[in-house]
Amino acid sequence: MRSLKERNQDRVEQMARFAAEKKIDLRALELDVLSEESIRAAFDQVLREAGRLDVVVNNAGMLMVGIAKAFTPAQMARILDTNAISWLRVNQAALPIMRRQKGGFLVYVGSTTSRIHEPFIGPYIASKAAGEALAEAMSFEAAPFGIESVIVVPGAFISGTEHFADAHGPEVLAVVSQYGELPDRLRGLGKALEALDADKGLGLTVESVGKAVRDVLDLPFGEKPFRITIDPQAKGMDEIEALTGATQHSFFEGRVGSAISSYTGQSICRPGDRDLAACL
Amino acid sequence: MRSLKERNQDRVEQMARFAAEKKIDLRALELDVLSEESIRAAFDQVLREAGRLDVVVNNAGMLMVGIAKAFTPAQMARILDTNAISWLRVNQAALPIMRRQKGGFLVYVGSTTSRIHEPFIGPYIASKAAGEALAEAMSFEAAPFGIESVIVVPGAFISGTEHFADAHGPEVLAVVSQYGELPDRLRGLGKALEALDADKGLGLTVESVGKAVRDVLDLPFGEKPFRITIDPQAKGMDEIEALTGATQHSFFEGRVGSAISSYTGQSICRPGDRDLAACL
Repeated sequence: MRSLKERNQDRVEQMARFAAEKKIDLRALELDVLSEESIRAAFDQVLREAGRLDVVVNNAGMLMVGIAKAFTPAQMARILDTNAISWLRVNQAALPIMRRQKGGFLVYVGSTTSRIHEPFIGPYIASKAAGEALAEAMSFEAAPFGIESVIVVPGAFISGTEHFADAHGPEVLAVVSQYGELPDRLRGLGKALEALDADKGLGLTVESVGKAVRDVLDLPFGEKPFRITIDPQAKGMDEIEALTGATQHSFFEGRVGSAISSYTGQSICRPGDRDLAACL
Repeated sequence: MRSLKERNQDRVEQMARFAAEKKIDLRALELDVLSEESIRAAFDQVLREAGRLDVVVNNAGMLMVGIAKAFTPAQMARILDTNAISWLRVNQAALPIMRRQKGGFLVYVGSTTSRIHEPFIGPYIASKAAGEALAEAMSFEAAPFGIESVIVVPGAFISGTEHFADAHGPEVLAVVSQYGELPDRLRGLGKALEALDADKGLGLTVESVGKAVRDVLDLPFGEKPFRITIDPQAKGMDEIEALTGATQHSFFEGRVGSAISSYTGQSICRPGDRDLAACL
């Protein structure tokens, strides 16, 4: 996390107490996903203290709530940088280490909103869609080096994160003012959903995401799925994933896909579909 | 387009000849989608010369071909800015005009790769996925003001565009060099596909995209579809769109969607699904 000794000192102490209680070796590292230098320093520290880097979970993210077209281009650039480009930046530091080790595991925390687009969080859904597409492209390329990847795709989680509490609002106030009382209401959306969750049990607890990451880590090499949906609201993502995966697979085997393969001399296949060593 | 009097002078003259021959009033405007100032100046010129702005087609785009993790974060930021954030920037200048006119029509040129992710063009698929998600969010918000939106989703088109000829390659050469002869081959992918297209007729002609935009413009208000796929390779996008649309619709009507609607006091619905005046 950022600001270990300043803003996040309380959390670092909380983690230390948790680690002592559970007798686990859990350490906080200073890491800002927007800075190549910070990322490299964090991985250097991991190598110094642990000797190797087995797993990277790309989980950092920010939320923006409000009328999409009232966000500035600079705000859009910032959320895309934090939620999507950071995955490239982190990978560029992690992959050379994993490649030297001849293996590693990359986890990306996606979102069901990347495929089932929801209103009022436009910059966020754009960033999650971009991140997942980029993660998929990088997964094709990491696989031949024995590096596995999984995109964990959570639904909406309110409790147990500070996603809504820390959400940014739009800065183009002339646009905001065209939407009556809606923008005011949107500012309180996180709290309202939290209250609804507490009252009616919408099933929005975040622990299941951590458990899913842990469970997928336990699976043997070559048997990890490429995408895992964890959606208490059962929006129907599994069906969309299945159809999209099958469609992608058919395209790769079809006329244009075959033309690309025959030209590049590389089979293309979908991460999670089958033996990736044959691909790329 | 950019550089009317310099780089693109030939094209401007070509357009003028075409317009004279067809007896149509077609004019080239200086417009750089990365510059708010340039966009505003272009729309000011439209208002001066034509008195109104009826349709904006968000079509500007760039391509990047190569190993995804060999692109720099700055390259990623650039393609996201050009292909996705530009849609926000253009809309912020166009929407106040359309709102004053009490109507207008926004067209976005998407890509089948936003849902069927393909390898070797990682930054591009990320940018197209981000752009479409953002377009969808903005469409929800524009609808109550009588402004219609459509995302035209083309498959792979090689001939008739300079997409591949102008494609950027990755700048992190230390990563590129890990992939043997693949990066060299990828540099020639556009030409190879063009040759394959000429030889075997992959059906990759670009005119059908222009025709689809023209045809949708002819449809009456309220009857335009929200997404149109134009894919000569028939990858199966229509089925993915239908399932995604239905799933999104169910979510909006389900527990969390209803909770959001009841809190915000606004129905949420999918553009193209039904009467949008009731939504947002």
